[in-house]
Amino acid sequence: LKSKLPYVKTTIFTTVGNLARKHNAIDLSQGFPNFEADAKLISLVNQAMEQGHNQYAPMQGYYGLREIISEKIQTLHGHQYHPQTEITITVGATQAIYTAITAFVHPGDEVIVLKPAYDCYEPAIKVNGGIPIFLQLNVPDYKIDWEAFKAKITKKTKMVIINTPHNPSGKIFSENDMLQLQEILKGTNILVLSDEVYEHIVFDGKEHQSASRYTDLAERSFVCASFGKTFHVTGWKIGYCAAPKALMKEFRKVHQFAVFCVDHPVQRALTEYLKNPEHYLGLNDFYQRKRDLFLEGLADSKFKFIPTQGTYFQLLDYTQITQESDEEFAKKLILEHKLASIPISSFNVNNRDDKVLRFCFAKKQETLENAVEILSSL
Amino acid sequence: LKSKLPYVKTTIFTTVGNLARKHNAIDLSQGFPNFEADAKLISLVNQAMEQGHNQYAPMQGYYGLREIISEKIQTLHGHQYHPQTEITITVGATQAIYTAITAFVHPGDEVIVLKPAYDCYEPAIKVNGGIPIFLQLNVPDYKIDWEAFKAKITKKTKMVIINTPHNPSGKIFSENDMLQLQEILKGTNILVLSDEVYEHIVFDGKEHQSASRYTDLAERSFVCASFGKTFHVTGWKIGYCAAPKALMKEFRKVHQFAVFCVDHPVQRALTEYLKNPEHYLGLNDFYQRKRDLFLEGLADSKFKFIPTQGTYFQLLDYTQITQESDEEFAKKLILEHKLASIPISSFNVNNRDDKVLRFCFAKKQETLENAVEILSSL
Ligand SMILES: CSCCC(=O)C(=O)O
Ligand SMILES: CSCCC(=O)C(=O)O
Repeated sequence: LKSKLPYVKTTIFTTVGNLARKHNAIDLSQGFPNFEADAKLISLVNQAMEQGHNQYAPMQGYYGLREIISEKIQTLHGHQYHPQTEITITVGATQAIYTAITAFVHPGDEVIVLKPAYDCYEPAIKVNGGIPIFLQLNVPDYKIDWEAFKAKITKKTKMVIINTPHNPSGKIFSENDMLQLQEILKGTNILVLSDEVYEHIVFDGKEHQSASRYTDLAERSFVCASFGKTFHVTGWKIGYCAAPKALMKEFRKVHQFAVFCVDHPVQRALTEYLKNPEHYLGLNDFYQRKRDLFLEGLADSKFKFIPTQGTYFQLLDYTQITQESDEEFAKKLILEHKLASIPISSFNVNNRDDKVLRFCFAKKQETLENAVEILSSL
Repeated sequence: LKSKLPYVKTTIFTTVGNLARKHNAIDLSQGFPNFEADAKLISLVNQAMEQGHNQYAPMQGYYGLREIISEKIQTLHGHQYHPQTEITITVGATQAIYTAITAFVHPGDEVIVLKPAYDCYEPAIKVNGGIPIFLQLNVPDYKIDWEAFKAKITKKTKMVIINTPHNPSGKIFSENDMLQLQEILKGTNILVLSDEVYEHIVFDGKEHQSASRYTDLAERSFVCASFGKTFHVTGWKIGYCAAPKALMKEFRKVHQFAVFCVDHPVQRALTEYLKNPEHYLGLNDFYQRKRDLFLEGLADSKFKFIPTQGTYFQLLDYTQITQESDEEFAKKLILEHKLASIPISSFNVNNRDDKVLRFCFAKKQETLENAVEILSSL
């Protein structure tokens, strides 16, 4: 039996997470909060179940939820997606990303991916017979060389994947980045997959640059978002994809046979919860305080860093501590110091070793303080 | 932009469901219950959320749930699946089916599908470049001609999809059917996808024939099951796939990048709920009473039927009433008589018209009585 994904191993998040549990380490590896979700949101799910919303949701998602998402995007980014034909509720952003790729990437098609990158893009491209074309960005600022990007485009380019705020680097795309991308793609049929799961976690007064803000980009883009990231419930597996009607039509053909629909009570609960914009607009400050707590604690440590601009991840350069590889040092941190992080090499082209680790600061104050103590002692 | 699924339209379930709502018809079309889920199960989900199980579940599923599924299969069918390596929790059986097909069907591979068939198999095969090879079964008893089946096998056959209890016909595979299939596949590398979502809805003292019961079949099979169907919560989107280690390894490579994992609180709740086997063993009687209520009401009607052996669907032959096509008559029933059903033609090869409609009897007694009244008046 021929494997379609011969090179795929268990994801780094499962491997590191298991090691962390085994060694009882403080876990700043996988991106999820270790504090409680809002009790109000939980009680809304309970209400929805008790009210009997326990059977299939519509294939595209509960209409009320699509409607309020549409209004939210309109308010924040000035673009109107029609809830009936242009928004689909998905099993987290992962399924949105997978489905957009599957609906459009044919065998032999090329997809440009900026690296470092979260690890779900590449297998989704390959399982569909597509060819990932990588553009490696570099520490410390992960600046995009748009000329180099342009040089990657060929007649076979079907799609470009962008991710802002960017996991793992915390970089956010500037308005200029978006305009350059828009300009480069003008006149082509190239699609854009815009992974915006950290849209509400942006710091220092900066603004999230959604692909939906740029008319010519929006026309060719799938915008993928995650309620799990935004509302501290990564285990509820719910997000959405927004795209122009013609693209969404093909997206739904795959969606309807890959999962059919998404958890119904959770959709009802989120519809209510989204009515109060404070539930997501307060997130920037909430996480900025955590970032600052973490970085202030490390001010006198041997780690070098640029404060992350968005996401709940912070990269730390450890060259002043050891010359071990990312993987070796990440492992040693777990085994000897009881602290788990993600080696950045696992996100790079050919696992390039940058001597940088990624730390998730979506954690309780106490957890962060303990982590800081360990890191400062190195 | 070239569509990968040019022929795919909105599924019949969405189309008929929308029409039923619009005309305020009694809805016996899509397969879901219109009565409440068990309050105990709902409160277990609520508990799991309150206890803080709101972040990512393990990629393969919560271990406790996989363990109890393993024990259940061992008890009922005498086959042992190792929970660590041979069971994966999925976003309903739909995602299990889609994922098994995606992991193994390469462009040009053939997949044998018995028709009539539920409508998710064909697009999943085609989106992966596979070729569905249909064997049409016939009213009224949908007997399988295993010689004809054997004749469909070629060097390109990668997989066979079976479904017992069978949607839409209600036929259950006999022990002899399973043995014939096992014998035919002996010595080949052909995989079996066994859709067993109605495993606990089997009537008249008959037994469900799981592929896991037959050693040589189990070795090549993906067994797909649905908690949504079994526990009256189709909107919670949770099921599982069981398969031998080597097959499950490839399955998980797709699973981890298509959805990553499944709703965590629901997994915790089901783990508790499954500890009491009465929660699923009582289902046969529960639904048999509904079937009998429905059929007794139709005894003097013009419809011809063979009592369904399993599933919560009953086929009715309407040739004594009209010569209209399945689709025309199904539509007329909604518009003029306010009763929705599924035209069986939508499950047949080339939409062959059998003058048969499918009715879902997973409904409250009152709903069934009202439906019977309408059908008896025709
Ligand atoms: C699905 S596991 C990964 C969670 C995440 O986004 C990350 O840690 O990068
Ligand atoms: C996902 S909609 C279909 C539900 C079902 O199994 C059926 O009606 O056949």
